[in-house]
Amino acid sequence: MAQEDTAQIGLIGLGTMGSALALNIAEKGFPIAVWNRKTQVTRDFHDEAGELADKVIPTETHEELVAAIAKPRAIILMVPAGEPVDEQIAKLRPLLDADDVIIDAGNANFHDTNRRVREIDDVEFLGIGVSGGEAGARHGPAIMGGGKKELWDRVSHILEAIAAKFEGEPCAAWMGREGAGHFVKAVHNGIEYADMQMIAEAYGVMRDGMKMAPDAIGDTFARFNEGALKSYLIEISSTVTKAADTHTGQPMIDLILDKAGQKGTGRWTAIEAQHLAAPIPAIEAAVVARNLSSRVAARREGEDMFGAAPMEIPSEMISDEMLERALIAGKVLCYAQGFDMIAAASAQFGWTLPLPEIAKVWREGCIIRSAMLDDMAAALAEDEDRNLMLAPAFARHLREGHVALRELVAIGARFGHPMPALSSGLSYFDTMRTARGTANMIQAQRDYFGEHGFERTDGIEDAHGPWHGHGV
Amino acid sequence: MAQEDTAQIGLIGLGTMGSALALNIAEKGFPIAVWNRKTQVTRDFHDEAGELADKVIPTETHEELVAAIAKPRAIILMVPAGEPVDEQIAKLRPLLDADDVIIDAGNANFHDTNRRVREIDDVEFLGIGVSGGEAGARHGPAIMGGGKKELWDRVSHILEAIAAKFEGEPCAAWMGREGAGHFVKAVHNGIEYADMQMIAEAYGVMRDGMKMAPDAIGDTFARFNEGALKSYLIEISSTVTKAADTHTGQPMIDLILDKAGQKGTGRWTAIEAQHLAAPIPAIEAAVVARNLSSRVAARREGEDMFGAAPMEIPSEMISDEMLERALIAGKVLCYAQGFDMIAAASAQFGWTLPLPEIAKVWREGCIIRSAMLDDMAAALAEDEDRNLMLAPAFARHLREGHVALRELVAIGARFGHPMPALSSGLSYFDTMRTARGTANMIQAQRDYFGEHGFERTDGIEDAHGPWHGHGV
Repeated sequence: MAQEDTAQIGLIGLGTMGSALALNIAEKGFPIAVWNRKTQVTRDFHDEAGELADKVIPTETHEELVAAIAKPRAIILMVPAGEPVDEQIAKLRPLLDADDVIIDAGNANFHDTNRRVREIDDVEFLGIGVSGGEAGARHGPAIMGGGKKELWDRVSHILEAIAAKFEGEPCAAWMGREGAGHFVKAVHNGIEYADMQMIAEAYGVMRDGMKMAPDAIGDTFARFNEGALKSYLIEISSTVTKAADTHTGQPMIDLILDKAGQKGTGRWTAIEAQHLAAPIPAIEAAVVARNLSSRVAARREGEDMFGAAPMEIPSEMISDEMLERALIAGKVLCYAQGFDMIAAASAQFGWTLPLPEIAKVWREGCIIRSAMLDDMAAALAEDEDRNLMLAPAFARHLREGHVALRELVAIGARFGHPMPALSSGLSYFDTMRTARGTANMIQAQRDYFGEHGFERTDGIEDAHGPWHGHGV
Repeated sequence: MAQEDTAQIGLIGLGTMGSALALNIAEKGFPIAVWNRKTQVTRDFHDEAGELADKVIPTETHEELVAAIAKPRAIILMVPAGEPVDEQIAKLRPLLDADDVIIDAGNANFHDTNRRVREIDDVEFLGIGVSGGEAGARHGPAIMGGGKKELWDRVSHILEAIAAKFEGEPCAAWMGREGAGHFVKAVHNGIEYADMQMIAEAYGVMRDGMKMAPDAIGDTFARFNEGALKSYLIEISSTVTKAADTHTGQPMIDLILDKAGQKGTGRWTAIEAQHLAAPIPAIEAAVVARNLSSRVAARREGEDMFGAAPMEIPSEMISDEMLERALIAGKVLCYAQGFDMIAAASAQFGWTLPLPEIAKVWREGCIIRSAMLDDMAAALAEDEDRNLMLAPAFARHLREGHVALRELVAIGARFGHPMPALSSGLSYFDTMRTARGTANMIQAQRDYFGEHGFERTDGIEDAHGPWHGHGV
């Protein structure tokens, strides 16, 4: 039986992520009471906690869990998003005091977090986004907090202790009220989709266009990881490309079906961007690419009909350096879109999402951690309202990289290498640096068929064209 | 005072669209009772109806309107989408009999139509999508019906009479239960966005790359309108490009600000596609382009920093013919995406949306009407489940056009002409004809950092890589 009031925090849900987070908390010296739907899981967890076992207080009922935690209590939920969260909240509410706080650390849709903050009026509630997978949860995730600031301040010493550190600074911060933490986590995941897709596009060029063997591709990614692209995703791209399958000894990457799954967080981000009218074409392109990848049979039919698209690229036309520079430019443009979306949400929801803090939190612990995020934090600290592509450090990357991006997209078009994310980045760049675009044609059409009206460039006050009233 | 029971149909809302639709109905010989929130509008409408006045029965109250219509009654709502529709429904319900039908012919979000079908249990309800703007409503729109089939059958003689005709066939059809009609209308609008964006991209190449004057661009669009691109949108692109501003005598198109508006229907389509996991990159690209166009100040800043993107294209590299072929290929791919999304909705919502009928309905009356839709109707009638790009007639267009699309996208990349929609089409084509894509890299990464697992190409049962358990 658990001793009463000895735990500094509680945790519900001992799945992969919950177990890892609980061990992390225990390791940092905070006694933690844990509960799981299946009691055997709780017992096994305690039994296998090794030298951390004395910091772990296993409990078998909600009542026991609550009793084991010192007041004012804090209880982390690490259960599947959706109904299981509401279920646990419903069970805890009658047992808790008004100043106790329930912390949903799962992958909630931020709209659900907003709703819970509104609905739960008898206890306190925080929603926090936790990124970094199992390893992150165990050894240091990035943590994005949302809810009342004073509640965050009450638990932040624990969350900062367990978070990843970048040069000693904890990658944990309060993002804003309500579902702000889960919202920022969603954008993180959207950027992750786009970053992964751009890497996959570069991989395709090396594999099919440059006819490089997996091992050589892995070496190239390893070299990329020594420059501006230095990041977890580039690092593991090298690792997975060089890995050998234990069953056959062949390169593992060659034996994996090209059919990508998604757990829906990229989709949520794309939907929310549409609501916010925030343009995130690289993320949308990445979601499309995953959806199309799952249509294996249709793609085979397409290849039978038209022949396979990607052709070998003459070696004098392409190089590692071009790929690296193009990826750098693409990455800058993708992050510019992501931060722009966060700024749009800040305005729309009346949050003041701290853009430089977000870049800082993402520097370690999470999947998109990278060297570049430190520079982004600095650029955003200088001017939060400026699109990242206009910040001097990133404008320099783009000036150096856009020619390579251009060449690569042109080569992709000519030689049949699909580059939805990289080419969307180029379109974004060229659109955002063209004062006189082509939407005047769209406005003329809209006015013609729907009398929607337009603004004029010369200040004359007449919202319609000479065709007015004749649109048939 | 209106004579009782003499109208065959009623209509609420005498705005631009409602007035036009009412006159159309009267002209086809159906006596129609009309009501508007402001009685003066109703009176003016009747006074100005000319020789149709004797078919128009103006009414001043809902009671009077209802009394004027023969049983079982049918009343069209043509009021702004959202609350105004619910308001009118609430006012009508107590006055109507159980077998009377309210027909929402406005621009409802189909989720609202689904909800209304569920909630309204004391009278009947149909949701119909009407496309073609004011001129279409007056002289023949495309009509997409949704709700109970037997209700559609009761009013279809009126709707078919007022609809546009393609070679004598009315462009009006029942799409399916609930909000099916409004859903199909939303996809129509999404396709409209993409088609317009691709035309704007071609316009930009002619204006900035080929340095053509508006009049010459208009001539080129007129020539395009004699071939496979023949369509209302290409036709009006010619008209608006050749039009002179009445104030200054200058080409009108040059004086229109390049800042496109949107009423949100493209956005709805993009959101719904995300929910359905239906890849519609051309439509998403068009929505992004509209959003970016509105950032006039940021684009000017971008141009100051990087220089304007679009450069002159050497004349030997580009031609009208290339543009035409590229647009044909882009259009096929965009429609393939749209019909694919409709098929996905059909499966998801348990509707059986009649794909060939939809193509037929779109052949006349609506904004995207075009010669090509007749061929699409034939191709879909042959095989509804096949992606349109694989149908022989369209595979031929793609075989002939993809090289031009490739060249154009490559030129756009090299010479700084943003082509988000056309290049997304090319990526879609190349992805859908590549049996072995690059998503194996994404799956490897996902398994590495999140243990998400993958399928193998060789049938060995092991969902994880050799890195399993080492992802840090």
